[in-house]
Amino acid sequence: MTTTVHFLENSVKKPKPNADQIAFGKHFTDHMFVMDYETGKGWFDPRIVPYEPITLDPAAMIFHYGQTVFEGLKAYRTKEDRILLFRPEENFKRLNLSSERLSIPEIDQNLALDCLKELLEVEKDWVPTKEGNSLYIRPFVIATEPNLSLAPSQTYQFIIILSPVGSYYKEGIQPVRIHVEEEYTRAVRGGTGRAKTAGNYAAAYKAQEKATKEGYSQVLWLDGVEKKYIEEVGSMNVFFKVNGEVITPELNGSILEGITRKSIIEVLKDWNVPVKERKISLEELYDAYSKGQVEEAFGTGTAAVISPVGELNWGEKKMIFNDGQIGDLSQRLYDTLTGIQTGEIEDPYNWTVEVK
Amino acid sequence: MTTTVHFLENSVKKPKPNADQIAFGKHFTDHMFVMDYETGKGWFDPRIVPYEPITLDPAAMIFHYGQTVFEGLKAYRTKEDRILLFRPEENFKRLNLSSERLSIPEIDQNLALDCLKELLEVEKDWVPTKEGNSLYIRPFVIATEPNLSLAPSQTYQFIIILSPVGSYYKEGIQPVRIHVEEEYTRAVRGGTGRAKTAGNYAAAYKAQEKATKEGYSQVLWLDGVEKKYIEEVGSMNVFFKVNGEVITPELNGSILEGITRKSIIEVLKDWNVPVKERKISLEELYDAYSKGQVEEAFGTGTAAVISPVGELNWGEKKMIFNDGQIGDLSQRLYDTLTGIQTGEIEDPYNWTVEVK
Ligand SMILES: Cc1ncc(COP(=O)(O)O)c(C=O)c1O
Ligand SMILES: Cc1ncc(COP(=O)(O)O)c(C=O)c1O
Repeated sequence: MTTTVHFLENSVKKPKPNADQIAFGKHFTDHMFVMDYETGKGWFDPRIVPYEPITLDPAAMIFHYGQTVFEGLKAYRTKEDRILLFRPEENFKRLNLSSERLSIPEIDQNLALDCLKELLEVEKDWVPTKEGNSLYIRPFVIATEPNLSLAPSQTYQFIIILSPVGSYYKEGIQPVRIHVEEEYTRAVRGGTGRAKTAGNYAAAYKAQEKATKEGYSQVLWLDGVEKKYIEEVGSMNVFFKVNGEVITPELNGSILEGITRKSIIEVLKDWNVPVKERKISLEELYDAYSKGQVEEAFGTGTAAVISPVGELNWGEKKMIFNDGQIGDLSQRLYDTLTGIQTGEIEDPYNWTVEVK
Repeated sequence: MTTTVHFLENSVKKPKPNADQIAFGKHFTDHMFVMDYETGKGWFDPRIVPYEPITLDPAAMIFHYGQTVFEGLKAYRTKEDRILLFRPEENFKRLNLSSERLSIPEIDQNLALDCLKELLEVEKDWVPTKEGNSLYIRPFVIATEPNLSLAPSQTYQFIIILSPVGSYYKEGIQPVRIHVEEEYTRAVRGGTGRAKTAGNYAAAYKAQEKATKEGYSQVLWLDGVEKKYIEEVGSMNVFFKVNGEVITPELNGSILEGITRKSIIEVLKDWNVPVKERKISLEELYDAYSKGQVEEAFGTGTAAVISPVGELNWGEKKMIFNDGQIGDLSQRLYDTLTGIQTGEIEDPYNWTVEVK
């Protein structure tokens, strides 16, 4: 790369967490990547520094007006000890899409990817060897100007932190039970649903709390306007196999454009499985279910890749999909995507990017 | 108060900004108030410390999932050198309402107010003497746990910072020109509109940018569902005087429950001016306008108290209220509220709270 990334090595190296019981998102590596932005100057001073606290004025805009975006992706170690990323350019493309919505300056995609690769080279020992484990990557941008005015910040930091994580499925793939949320709204047309931005997430805790209380593990979100159409499940996109055809809600501005979602659609097309992105209402789904036509349901996202939905609870109506078991297509998609991500199977799509 | 607030004095005292040209939200006093929270332990260690940077782990939840709430109020200096707050208990009540929506632990209202008063005693020299100037108070709560899991934080900080600000109206009250936003949405039923939380604010920058580009100073927000009903203008509630009756959008979950709004309604009732909180569509407003029935329009909020709306631009339709001048009722409300706030006139409502 043309930009020089400064490297300040951490003299202290932390012990790695026990590979068999890593809690998600609680362990961090020895270094992080940081780059600054100032209006008029652009992005500058890319650097890899010891993982350390961020120091910000209490009036920094991130604390008051939520001008921030983030991403989430993973690095996998193959059996041959290669380190692979899965479509990372898509994450940086989406980071910029999110930034556009939040009036945050864009970052050159190639520069961002190069910086991530340099960080991963420094931290390569942190990419877990145990099957199913991986290194979770969290790039994020925060508005740092100390100013209580309601206007976009003049300064930002772009930071990447790394966190070794365990397998999402420690005891085999467990289908999840999902609660349809009819009161709270995650996102609406004209809002920020399409952006990966902090405010969307804490706003969802109340609904999650309700679902948990009623014994469900996640929430199915409906559209904010009519409260009729299916949008997402938890922090995953969602797919239904109905009568041999796979249906997923179309991108409408309030749904996050998942990279796993996009990949699943491409794989299905490649396999000649009919797949449609379109509006689908709960009513329609329930109708099809009543006729015995819903064959499989699953969520998709970086964390779980595929998360089969075993049960969907819609007020008094309950839907059990595929006897609460993972379906054949879900399993095949899971095996294919995770196989490509970990280098176990060939990557005909050129999705993986190796960190040298 | 029963809780002891620790006080660590700042050995350095900053010069006060020039009273004639204070930029909003850029100057801060010598001290701030901080209190911590941990699950199981509750709120602890209330303290007044030098105004200084906050140090947080890069994985602190505030940076990723937006779990945060804030408030905004002002302290005024009277001619007799008393320091007055305006209905501060309402701000801490609303802080708790916001916190409930964001799954943040509540803070005892009385405790919070006592802490604010102690901070103001320390910083009383910072309350400006110049007429129209005041000390802006920003209480806020941030989620501080370093954890990338999607769940409420186990630790928080409650912070109060103080900022001397100039008069909103340096050259007399100027009515504002407002642009109706039809594409972007601020808030929706089931969302976080009723809460004063960071995510709502950065989400509004795109619409503000559009309005500015078209020569308007602020945005009028419509409801997120039908895009028909009037909600707020910028960060203010909005009132219309139509045919002798004052109308303001009813609280519906997506509108912020302004304390100025509440006070205006009480004053109007006291004056026997008919006032209604109800749904009002732009269509209805335009109809009334076409018939010459819209007499005045104004926004309300802590910053400006009353901000007359001179012009409302709705696509091809333009509405000019009261010849673009401040109306009699708006002026009388402004004089009354600011009079009470600054101790110039009697406070029959017992709204002001003196800091001794
Ligand atoms: C709201 C939401 N939906 C869907 C997804 C899935 O996106 P991806 O497949 O890119 O991980 C995510 C992120 O993981 C998300 O936060
Ligand atoms: C979105 C929004 N609406 C209205 C208001 C007015 O509320 P208050 O009168 O309490 O200042 C505010 C805050 O100032 C606000 O942020």
